[in-house]
Amino acid sequence: MNPEAAAGAGQGDLARLRALVRQFVDERDWDQFHTPKNLSSALAVEAAELLEHFQWLHHGRIDELGADKLVQVRHEMADVLVYLVRLADKLDVDLMAAVEEKMVLNRAKYPADKVRGDARKYHEYKDA
Amino acid sequence: MNPEAAAGAGQGDLARLRALVRQFVDERDWDQFHTPKNLSSALAVEAAELLEHFQWLHHGRIDELGADKLVQVRHEMADVLVYLVRLADKLDVDLMAAVEEKMVLNRAKYPADKVRGDARKYHEYKDA
Amino acid sequence: MNPEAAAGAGQGDLARLRALVRQFVDERDWDQFHTPKNLSSALAVEAAELLEHFQWLHHGRIDELGADKLVQVRHEMADVLVYLVRLADKLDVDLMAAVEEKMVLNRAKYPADKVRGDARKYHEYKDA
Amino acid sequence: MNPEAAAGAGQGDLARLRALVRQFVDERDWDQFHTPKNLSSALAVEAAELLEHFQWLHHGRIDELGADKLVQVRHEMADVLVYLVRLADKLDVDLMAAVEEKMVLNRAKYPADKVRGDARKYHEYKDA
Repeated sequence: MNPEAAAGAGQGDLARLRALVRQFVDERDWDQFHTPKNLSSALAVEAAELLEHFQWLHHGRIDELGADKLVQVRHEMADVLVYLVRLADKLDVDLMAAVEEKMVLNRAKYPADKVRGDARKYHEYKDA
Repeated sequence: MNPEAAAGAGQGDLARLRALVRQFVDERDWDQFHTPKNLSSALAVEAAELLEHFQWLHHGRIDELGADKLVQVRHEMADVLVYLVRLADKLDVDLMAAVEEKMVLNRAKYPADKVRGDARKYHEYKDA
Repeated sequence: MNPEAAAGAGQGDLARLRALVRQFVDERDWDQFHTPKNLSSALAVEAAELLEHFQWLHHGRIDELGADKLVQVRHEMADVLVYLVRLADKLDVDLMAAVEEKMVLNRAKYPADKVRGDARKYHEYKDA
Repeated sequence: MNPEAAAGAGQGDLARLRALVRQFVDERDWDQFHTPKNLSSALAVEAAELLEHFQWLHHGRIDELGADKLVQVRHEMADVLVYLVRLADKLDVDLMAAVEEKMVLNRAKYPADKVRGDARKYHEYKDA
């Protein structure tokens, strides 16, 4: 059994990714560059590279992308997730718990019966 | 058993998140706003909100953040993951497979013995 | 006298840039892609490409860049300005007036005697 | 005559903005935070805040914004320009010269007769 598989055996997706990325970084001695600040910059850069594929599309639907672009989009999405998982590792953040916590806040900020079909930001509802 | 838990039973983290986010969106009839283009914009915006917490730090280490900021950072990270998972859902991308595919490419582009301790981009190695 | 020079004669820098960019766009029939939404995406993408040159630097000072990188940085900065000027053109925004207006707000939000040497965001001063 | 007006007398828009921003920063002793890396992060963050106003719009045209949003958009555009001008100051970049230089490259990469009405990136034209 290789070390990567062993590291992730019996774990959830995100723990498995964390182990994969850790190993990749350690093999390259890149941890020295991975301050949370640098990682959040890298994450923003990858998110923009993803956005770049959509920026001139009229509607921005999947059928406007084409197969080649979709492969590139997949890879940019992978990069975003890799940096997010790495940042979570360095900040000791449990991403699943963070999403669950944030979804509770989101449910309170955007009550389904008030915001249905409307995408204005929550603060625009306060006085409505 | 509530529908969210049922939707994610026996699944991996990312499938569970996908179900959580789908339900949240459906309850609000927000799918109409979720073109891949709009979602990739939202992802880039959230990544920048995360970066904002680090932008003026001298070193950008965790100890410069403070406990309150760290909670906000956790929530921004959650937002990034939520939009990434939603985009993957709309584009029918398997994020785990995408990362595994991308890591193979990364291993080829950045051979550990050539890039150890060096963070220059891969194309700067081509002629070295 | 060429049309570009004529268009900008006796005008300020930003009016001259606006004319330059308009001509470039019109020659390519690209105005159809230049919704404010698309232009603000393109601006965010260029800003991230600029950031990419700095993301792994330890301190992020000019001496860490090197001459080649500095040329690339100059070009990314040009791209940012081009899209900003184009967006201002499409939204009929006078950028000089907008900055002067914003600087008045900034002076009120960040009184020099309260924030000297401190980079926390203004809302953190409200109760101090 | 106040110092700001004196600093910008007889100068172009961008030199005038540079003087305005310098004075604002010096009064607050904020130069210590203004490494090129931090400024490029701040620029990317402001560009994303600008994008946020457009992210859920169906078409992203000016008429979908509304008057209040347009004021906020103006202010975000001002912030982008302020950080760009500040970064140019710290890197000793002449923004007008940089744009003129970049426009020459853009004219070569996107010949008007080949790209008319088409927004694909230049490298997709190489083999066409």
